[in-house]
Amino acid sequence: MIKAGIIGATGYAGAELVRLLYSHPEAEIAAVSSVSFEGQALSSVYPAYLNLCDMVCETQSDVVNKSDVIFAALPHGLSQELAKECDEKGKVFIDLGADFRLEDEETYKKWYGLDFIDHELHKKAVYGLPELNREKIKNTNIIANPGCYTTAGPMALIPALKNGLIKKEGLIADCKSGVTGAGRKPSQNTHYPDLNEGLAAYKVGAHRHTPEIEQTLTKVCGEKVDITFVPHLLPVNRGILATCYGKLNEGVTAEDVYKAYKDAYEGEFFIRLLPKGKCADIHNIKYTNFCDVSVFVDEHTRTLIAISAIDNMVKGAAGQAIQNMNIVFGLSEKTGLDMMPPAF
Amino acid sequence: MIKAGIIGATGYAGAELVRLLYSHPEAEIAAVSSVSFEGQALSSVYPAYLNLCDMVCETQSDVVNKSDVIFAALPHGLSQELAKECDEKGKVFIDLGADFRLEDEETYKKWYGLDFIDHELHKKAVYGLPELNREKIKNTNIIANPGCYTTAGPMALIPALKNGLIKKEGLIADCKSGVTGAGRKPSQNTHYPDLNEGLAAYKVGAHRHTPEIEQTLTKVCGEKVDITFVPHLLPVNRGILATCYGKLNEGVTAEDVYKAYKDAYEGEFFIRLLPKGKCADIHNIKYTNFCDVSVFVDEHTRTLIAISAIDNMVKGAAGQAIQNMNIVFGLSEKTGLDMMPPAF
Amino acid sequence: MIKAGIIGATGYAGAELVRLLYSHPEAEIAAVSSVSFEGQALSSVYPAYLNLCDMVCETQSDVVNKSDVIFAALPHGLSQELAKECDEKGKVFIDLGADFRLEDEETYKKWYGLDFIDHELHKKAVYGLPELNREKIKNTNIIANPGCYTTAGPMALIPALKNGLIKKEGLIADCKSGVTGAGRKPSQNTHYPDLNEGLAAYKVGAHRHTPEIEQTLTKVCGEKVDITFVPHLLPVNRGILATCYGKLNEGVTAEDVYKAYKDAYEGEFFIRLLPKGKCADIHNIKYTNFCDVSVFVDEHTRTLIAISAIDNMVKGAAGQAIQNMNIVFGLSEKTGLDMMPPAF
Amino acid sequence: MIKAGIIGATGYAGAELVRLLYSHPEAEIAAVSSVSFEGQALSSVYPAYLNLCDMVCETQSDVVNKSDVIFAALPHGLSQELAKECDEKGKVFIDLGADFRLEDEETYKKWYGLDFIDHELHKKAVYGLPELNREKIKNTNIIANPGCYTTAGPMALIPALKNGLIKKEGLIADCKSGVTGAGRKPSQNTHYPDLNEGLAAYKVGAHRHTPEIEQTLTKVCGEKVDITFVPHLLPVNRGILATCYGKLNEGVTAEDVYKAYKDAYEGEFFIRLLPKGKCADIHNIKYTNFCDVSVFVDEHTRTLIAISAIDNMVKGAAGQAIQNMNIVFGLSEKTGLDMMPPAF
Repeated sequence: MIKAGIIGATGYAGAELVRLLYSHPEAEIAAVSSVSFEGQALSSVYPAYLNLCDMVCETQSDVVNKSDVIFAALPHGLSQELAKECDEKGKVFIDLGADFRLEDEETYKKWYGLDFIDHELHKKAVYGLPELNREKIKNTNIIANPGCYTTAGPMALIPALKNGLIKKEGLIADCKSGVTGAGRKPSQNTHYPDLNEGLAAYKVGAHRHTPEIEQTLTKVCGEKVDITFVPHLLPVNRGILATCYGKLNEGVTAEDVYKAYKDAYEGEFFIRLLPKGKCADIHNIKYTNFCDVSVFVDEHTRTLIAISAIDNMVKGAAGQAIQNMNIVFGLSEKTGLDMMPPAF
Repeated sequence: MIKAGIIGATGYAGAELVRLLYSHPEAEIAAVSSVSFEGQALSSVYPAYLNLCDMVCETQSDVVNKSDVIFAALPHGLSQELAKECDEKGKVFIDLGADFRLEDEETYKKWYGLDFIDHELHKKAVYGLPELNREKIKNTNIIANPGCYTTAGPMALIPALKNGLIKKEGLIADCKSGVTGAGRKPSQNTHYPDLNEGLAAYKVGAHRHTPEIEQTLTKVCGEKVDITFVPHLLPVNRGILATCYGKLNEGVTAEDVYKAYKDAYEGEFFIRLLPKGKCADIHNIKYTNFCDVSVFVDEHTRTLIAISAIDNMVKGAAGQAIQNMNIVFGLSEKTGLDMMPPAF
Repeated sequence: MIKAGIIGATGYAGAELVRLLYSHPEAEIAAVSSVSFEGQALSSVYPAYLNLCDMVCETQSDVVNKSDVIFAALPHGLSQELAKECDEKGKVFIDLGADFRLEDEETYKKWYGLDFIDHELHKKAVYGLPELNREKIKNTNIIANPGCYTTAGPMALIPALKNGLIKKEGLIADCKSGVTGAGRKPSQNTHYPDLNEGLAAYKVGAHRHTPEIEQTLTKVCGEKVDITFVPHLLPVNRGILATCYGKLNEGVTAEDVYKAYKDAYEGEFFIRLLPKGKCADIHNIKYTNFCDVSVFVDEHTRTLIAISAIDNMVKGAAGQAIQNMNIVFGLSEKTGLDMMPPAF
Repeated sequence: MIKAGIIGATGYAGAELVRLLYSHPEAEIAAVSSVSFEGQALSSVYPAYLNLCDMVCETQSDVVNKSDVIFAALPHGLSQELAKECDEKGKVFIDLGADFRLEDEETYKKWYGLDFIDHELHKKAVYGLPELNREKIKNTNIIANPGCYTTAGPMALIPALKNGLIKKEGLIADCKSGVTGAGRKPSQNTHYPDLNEGLAAYKVGAHRHTPEIEQTLTKVCGEKVDITFVPHLLPVNRGILATCYGKLNEGVTAEDVYKAYKDAYEGEFFIRLLPKGKCADIHNIKYTNFCDVSVFVDEHTRTLIAISAIDNMVKGAAGQAIQNMNIVFGLSEKTGLDMMPPAF
């Protein structure tokens, strides 16, 4: 059994890791930590876990010491030292935060206001989008688990970009996210009466996931890609719908597009290309690691509309982290993640 | 008092007309009709109206005969004959359906599969977007009340297009609508458990409001405008958020953009340009005739992001219809519509 | 025009007063205050009010000085001094808080931990349930506006108790409230993801509205009445459904029951007794001052089931306060409150 | 591997069986049937199941022939013949419908309008509430799986009744159910805009689960028990909260009550007695087979308030059916059901 530790276990991503690991046949939770709830049982914070995980929150170093793999679900800036410690102790470190996602230090500094404290560490770190970086993930012990939008958006656009079906200029990702993406801490805009029956965009053109999406698309394209990214806050708990737009290159047909997506995702268990004409719906992937992808061509404006749906807490956070753990430990990627999404 | 009649009063748009007219100080409901509920009290269909409007649904001709102004909330194809009858009897006819919205018969035929039965009638009809066509509305008795998306989208884009701030190519309207837009009739995709906590696009690049939006923008621009229009079905009752994208012309600054919107909407009571940095939210206009507009410039991709919010049943249907009635009858546009949106 | 002032205008009850007073034809808002947002525009706190009420929050004494009637929407304990000041200045004081609701000082002390600071003031104060105390309200200038549960519960039970149809022992009020009842301040249990798709009871048998409900029922009955009161927090914004149970006295028939309710509420505009067999639904009274009441008899257990529905922010707070203001100022009770509930 | 067949697989209970059986380590789905969707893939009805269960719906007899255990999720009246056929073929039959739940034919006739077609069959059938009837279930091949309310209500009341802590007169079950309880078929009252933000009771004192609850409580008590049962329709997808009231017998203390529940449920994995002071919440058991139970004593009215929460589709339908299957086939009851409820 893999001994898994969770740092920041009382945040939403941490709590979701607990839920998924509970059912994982090859891993067990060795320890959990939480700064806010140290000394308290996890089930006192999340009564849903009563009797199932009554583990008491310990310190961060307890977690490191007791675990083979450490999942860190921390605010940015807190993972670098921790990664170093895990690396030195020969542990696997999977960071659900942002500290290792951006390869370019200047970009990291611009968007997060911090420096890289150890460049060697950053070179070791692999961006944990398994569908792109599977081979590299196998051979590292530091994984930068992608963000939620940065999983959903690229999954919708990669096959088209990779195959040169759309122009790299003028890309747009209009994304809609469930509220859990905002975390467990109450705030005015996540207060039930303020959000319920509402919808608005936020951080328009200024969200930190922008450079991360661009980094992924740039790698796929081979040239610098920019994207207009607008996130919206949806009155639902879970799910991201990424509606992405790209200008079709001349001569490209709807058939070409569908074929490219089919080829790209054929062997990918977690990426489900929907039948032609069907649209991805966050309703259909909830609580699971699936990413549904659907593609449309608007002939009259020669625009590709690629729409993907993920559960922001699973494929957009904890599920993908476990998928990465499975890869590093040589397990089937599906282990512990082969569940059916509820139909309602 | 203006005698107002409502044909199709038991559909959602009809029922919303009843609610708004109840509070209108210069109009009273003279008669209502419904094919499905003829002979039944409106309050038996909508128990919310108990004691307040227990009028019994009569026939369509009863409504025409008893009214000065006839609101028709009917499926497309059913308004042309009715408009003719109203016109001949010297009544004002306000059509909440699609039959008189498109000026080009070929386009109407292509999207709705029907012909114009009387071209003179179509020439008389004015497209009832008061903020654009106020003067023409004053002098007609046949009004084609715009659709919901076709109000929200253009309100977000018109000032930029009119002032040449964005290119007319590559426009995108990513719209999200509350469920009432789908009408009162139950269906699988509006069944509570199927829609709740879900989100998907529908009729991607193929929604009938596309040519109507394009017609409006083309008039504003002076040249043919195409747009990529993708509607989504939101798990909320009311509200449309239209997130619209356009490529900025060279040299245009964020200041230019804000000023153009400010100038365009300064005197418009129902169009509220939000302070810089704030995003329109469907939460803030519910149950009222307001259209909130917010504008953002993404410098790094040189993209205008203009976001508008309306209540699809009010500014997107019944409220705008009453605004049109007010204009035709020489009342202040605000009459009966000067309400504060609930804050929660 | 009545000059109305609102103290605590940025709380939910205060904000709802603003919305309703905006449409009141005989009153105008003279001033608003807020401790948390002093110096800020109300529309910066509630963007829904943009352009419609951009008044700046002043101090409490500004409000008192500028107003004929002062509405106070404050935490308990803060109204007694204020009432005194208003009384001395010859103003009308309508308290949406709890300080004047309980007539018995011991009970107040037990549930709220405070003393009466001026017994004369408490003697002047009238409990503002217009359907019970209309005549007394006319002749006072200090009104204790009832709480939300304490309006909904009694409205369901009074006709049965008054007419001796049910026993006064064994009464139960199983109530379900929308989230706005918890106020504007974010907290863990009103955080969207924690509440959404959930339902639980809270303060079981220990809610402060218990003695207030009992006080009202005791007055109606003429003898001390106890009740088991269990509130639940619903994942909806507005509305209280009070499902009340009482044991039928021998010989009482369903007809007797219906007749008693009909007689009791016949002349009451805001109380709508539903047709037999129909159940009150919070869906049907939202945003308005109506209280829908429905009654059922379970013959096999000889139990009366009386179910009422109100909007907790209107008939349960701001609407009832305005109804009280109308009475004091000699207006029709309906003034400014004669609106149709939205059907959806 | 147990070969499991599902009749009525496209209804909500059937679809939930598919989801749960997908993860069951000792059973596999052998065949599914659906009258409405015969010949179609299950994943075309429920796109959430795409790639995971694309089985095509066959006929009822295909299912019977291919399976060791047959789950029937059918409208009442359709299970008797089917049970007979299964019995004759030596199969295990688990009925999620109502045909075998009531032991008394007269009661069945009164509430369902039908006769028992084969009395021997009814004698064989065991009411599948494992926490009560575990031993009998082991030795039968016909199981009447309880309804949702009829699981939630009794779980809240049994320990108190069994131990004589409350009177058997005057019991009340005020229950609130998520919408999936109404099934997959769209109707006006489950149409999203009609239900959303609403709450009402239905079938007040007249719901078919009344005699079933009474049958269970009567068995526990040893004497005839009546109950006042009022169900409400909640705007959430899943979950039943049963708020149950009983009059405490003299001398019974809160301690006595808590101890009785503790003793009753100590060894029951799926029944979680909450810590004192905590209330059961449907939020905490969703998608799982848990039943959370919480108990309160209102001293001032000497009333027991026992509140339970289940997922109506799991412990209230498909999960309990699998729990029953596990018992019949000699597996641990937890097999395939040992999952953590999502915390959000």
